[in-house]
Amino acid sequence: MKSLDDLLLHFLQDVYYVERQLVKALPKMTKSAQAPALKEAFTAHHQETIHHVERLEQVFELLGKSAKGVPCEAIKGLIEEAEEVIDTSQIGPVRDAGLIACGQAVEHYEMARYGSLIAWAQTAGHKDMAALLQKTLDDEKNAEKTLHDLAIKQINKSANAVAAAA
Amino acid sequence: MKSLDDLLLHFLQDVYYVERQLVKALPKMTKSAQAPALKEAFTAHHQETIHHVERLEQVFELLGKSAKGVPCEAIKGLIEEAEEVIDTSQIGPVRDAGLIACGQAVEHYEMARYGSLIAWAQTAGHKDMAALLQKTLDDEKNAEKTLHDLAIKQINKSANAVAAAA
Repeated sequence: MKSLDDLLLHFLQDVYYVERQLVKALPKMTKSAQAPALKEAFTAHHQETIHHVERLEQVFELLGKSAKGVPCEAIKGLIEEAEEVIDTSQIGPVRDAGLIACGQAVEHYEMARYGSLIAWAQTAGHKDMAALLQKTLDDEKNAEKTLHDLAIKQINKSANAVAAAA
Repeated sequence: MKSLDDLLLHFLQDVYYVERQLVKALPKMTKSAQAPALKEAFTAHHQETIHHVERLEQVFELLGKSAKGVPCEAIKGLIEEAEEVIDTSQIGPVRDAGLIACGQAVEHYEMARYGSLIAWAQTAGHKDMAALLQKTLDDEKNAEKTLHDLAIKQINKSANAVAAAA
């Protein structure tokens, strides 16, 4: 990697892989959740994620490159963590609280990636690209906030009540 | 995992592993960076990270458990990404920009983890634990902001100048 455009391309390929893995992973998280509001949040974000993949394809086009993913070990690990929560818990609020934490970690990873990509696109003068990526960053921030609020207002209390009742 | 305390313990063990991996990884990132301000930021955060490990040991004590880490695939992946940037670039501003992006992703991961831990500790009534964890969360947020500002104000422009000169 010798230029800002090389970095931009590499990290775009990384996040393209990430979004496509999430399109596959989110239905399992939805199925494993119990609280209707959490199922709804995961389902809504699954739809957004499909749109993020398409948006990234537009960004590749603006860069004059064909859309291609490169395997990203970090997202594999983040998805594995969610699977571990599912495998080591029963359906219910404790699992839901764990799934929310895993979902928030994924959103934070994407916030970091899109934040760097936007900064590089702006510096390199790719304004249209930066504007497209900003829309996805806004979605990721909102998705993280939705999960956070759900944990604080509802799920964590339910999970704590399970412990108290046990 | 059957209770909020089970989740708390599991994710504490996860983040304990993470912090200890970072104590090992940060010196390599410092050595591989060129900009003095970036070397300084990584060095300062290395010192903080050593302190975060000690703080987590206090949290384990408050929970009446011995400090223990569980392998976390996500942080292994995040550290691998930084190593990949180092392996595929020469020393200079483009590598520095890539290292900043990797550093920000690590900070975001930790922000997600500590955020969940604090929320669970508060709900479970572990106020002292939440207060300790909040100190580390504040450090991680500041570290992320330092890297972000460094990218915007200095490193990305230098990286872009390299591309223009090539």
